[in-house]
Amino acid sequence: MRALVFDGEPRIVEKPIPRPEPGEALVKVLSAGICNTDLEILKGYMGFSGTLGHEFVGVVETCDNENLRGKRVVGEINCVCHNCDYCALEMPHHCLNRSVLGILSRDGAFAEYVALPEENLHLVPTTIRDDVAVFAEPLAAAFRILEQVNITAEDRVIVLGDGKLGQLIAQVIGGVTRNLICVGKHGWKLELLQKMNIAVAHMDDPMERGADYVIEATGSYIGFARALELVRPEGVVILKTTVAHPTALDLSLPVINEVSIIGSRCGPFRPALDALAKMNVDVRHMVTETFELRDGLRALRRASDADAMKILLHI
Amino acid sequence: MRALVFDGEPRIVEKPIPRPEPGEALVKVLSAGICNTDLEILKGYMGFSGTLGHEFVGVVETCDNENLRGKRVVGEINCVCHNCDYCALEMPHHCLNRSVLGILSRDGAFAEYVALPEENLHLVPTTIRDDVAVFAEPLAAAFRILEQVNITAEDRVIVLGDGKLGQLIAQVIGGVTRNLICVGKHGWKLELLQKMNIAVAHMDDPMERGADYVIEATGSYIGFARALELVRPEGVVILKTTVAHPTALDLSLPVINEVSIIGSRCGPFRPALDALAKMNVDVRHMVTETFELRDGLRALRRASDADAMKILLHI
Repeated sequence: MRALVFDGEPRIVEKPIPRPEPGEALVKVLSAGICNTDLEILKGYMGFSGTLGHEFVGVVETCDNENLRGKRVVGEINCVCHNCDYCALEMPHHCLNRSVLGILSRDGAFAEYVALPEENLHLVPTTIRDDVAVFAEPLAAAFRILEQVNITAEDRVIVLGDGKLGQLIAQVIGGVTRNLICVGKHGWKLELLQKMNIAVAHMDDPMERGADYVIEATGSYIGFARALELVRPEGVVILKTTVAHPTALDLSLPVINEVSIIGSRCGPFRPALDALAKMNVDVRHMVTETFELRDGLRALRRASDADAMKILLHI
Repeated sequence: MRALVFDGEPRIVEKPIPRPEPGEALVKVLSAGICNTDLEILKGYMGFSGTLGHEFVGVVETCDNENLRGKRVVGEINCVCHNCDYCALEMPHHCLNRSVLGILSRDGAFAEYVALPEENLHLVPTTIRDDVAVFAEPLAAAFRILEQVNITAEDRVIVLGDGKLGQLIAQVIGGVTRNLICVGKHGWKLELLQKMNIAVAHMDDPMERGADYVIEATGSYIGFARALELVRPEGVVILKTTVAHPTALDLSLPVINEVSIIGSRCGPFRPALDALAKMNVDVRHMVTETFELRDGLRALRRASDADAMKILLHI
């Protein structure tokens, strides 16, 4: 089968169809999305080597569970052992022996086929188009925030970052608070948010400080420093950005202001699929361009462009 | 009066006795302690210029409140406006218009006299010696942790840092959990902790990971990186260190592990004075040497020595 792999450099290769382990399903991939994490992997993040890609929708080709066979699915990316301390504590995302689709010790979904544990798969309602279903994974990561902190309707929330993840987070948080501003530096991306009635500001605009929550989704540690300026004393910064290289940071300010900084990663698929089905979160305008898998290298380059948002691969 | 000031370099000078503002007391200083924050100020931290020092015990010379006059006191260091949003929210430590004794816009206590708002002063029980009372301020900062997080007897806690603050924190946290290890890199400091029945480890020892809480009090960002390695997924790092310069940090790990990092600064004096009076926290062995104020420059140098813990100034 054809696959887009990274082994020091990204390449399109022919490789064998994955052989599912017991309990795993083989999924024929229909469509997949390029995430900033994929671009960070190209810079060395996680030291990953193998087939890229962790956002996908596909059809189950083989598996033990009859209810899944032949069905359209999306998949959670953490594959866990069920035996370690964190699995026992019902924190499977933090399984000590986990592999992570296209990120850690497991081939990803930028390929004709992908293997995943059956338990990771979620049926996709027929009302959700393929190019919308691909957003289930990053949208779940946005919903993770609501599992971690209790944001109320009166809380002042700033989302930093007008990119793919920032746009999803802004829509999710906009569902719980009246006081949301999404801050970015790309006029056209901010306009997309405004069309959804989300208040926006430019990163260089003078901003009122003292937000109860600042959600950092810029994909850069410069965003982290800005978040620390904007959050109120004893406020909360949610940190979504993971990048390949350390950056010079000053942590005196969060100590002085007694800020809580909370790392946030993968989230629940159920509310994500629900929001996509009910169109509570709209993602269709976020797709910039779709490439065929054979043009995967061009797709990766396009995903790095300043004028690109979500780039999809049609498999 | 004589004072130890910093204005780009530390100097002993003669300067006028402070004139208390309305509501302030004039305190004749008896003894004062050198903190790592003072040493960071010498490197540029907070851009402070003025009389150094924020840990002290003294006798109230003039004030409106009869109950304080002539009494021995220690003092909270944040001087607040009572008018701003954070004062209204009962977060006076975060007052937007605050001055901070010897740290921000207010002359400190390494001088014969210091002025502070009466409301900042706490009477010192007669059972507490001067060289013990000086520890009230840093010990309050240790007690602050118990206001921020709910550590239980079963929680696994690691205190990183065997210095002045680490020793105080270890004693305070040792009062609430059975599972405490204090990690440092100075054999003689670790021995002081062992004498108080606190389990210790050397910073280079292989350590079991997965602590519920790691309290970072090393005074260095290297300690922060170590804390992120030792804390469990979804665990908490309490950050006490403030240093003058930014450091290269990698925040991917706390995002992946969804760690909470909570800045922690000044704390409540009441439990601190209580613990000192009841000898629940013992600080007497922590005093390395006492200098006269006129030898303040030597005292500052001595406080930087690897074989020094608390250095006191006798005023």
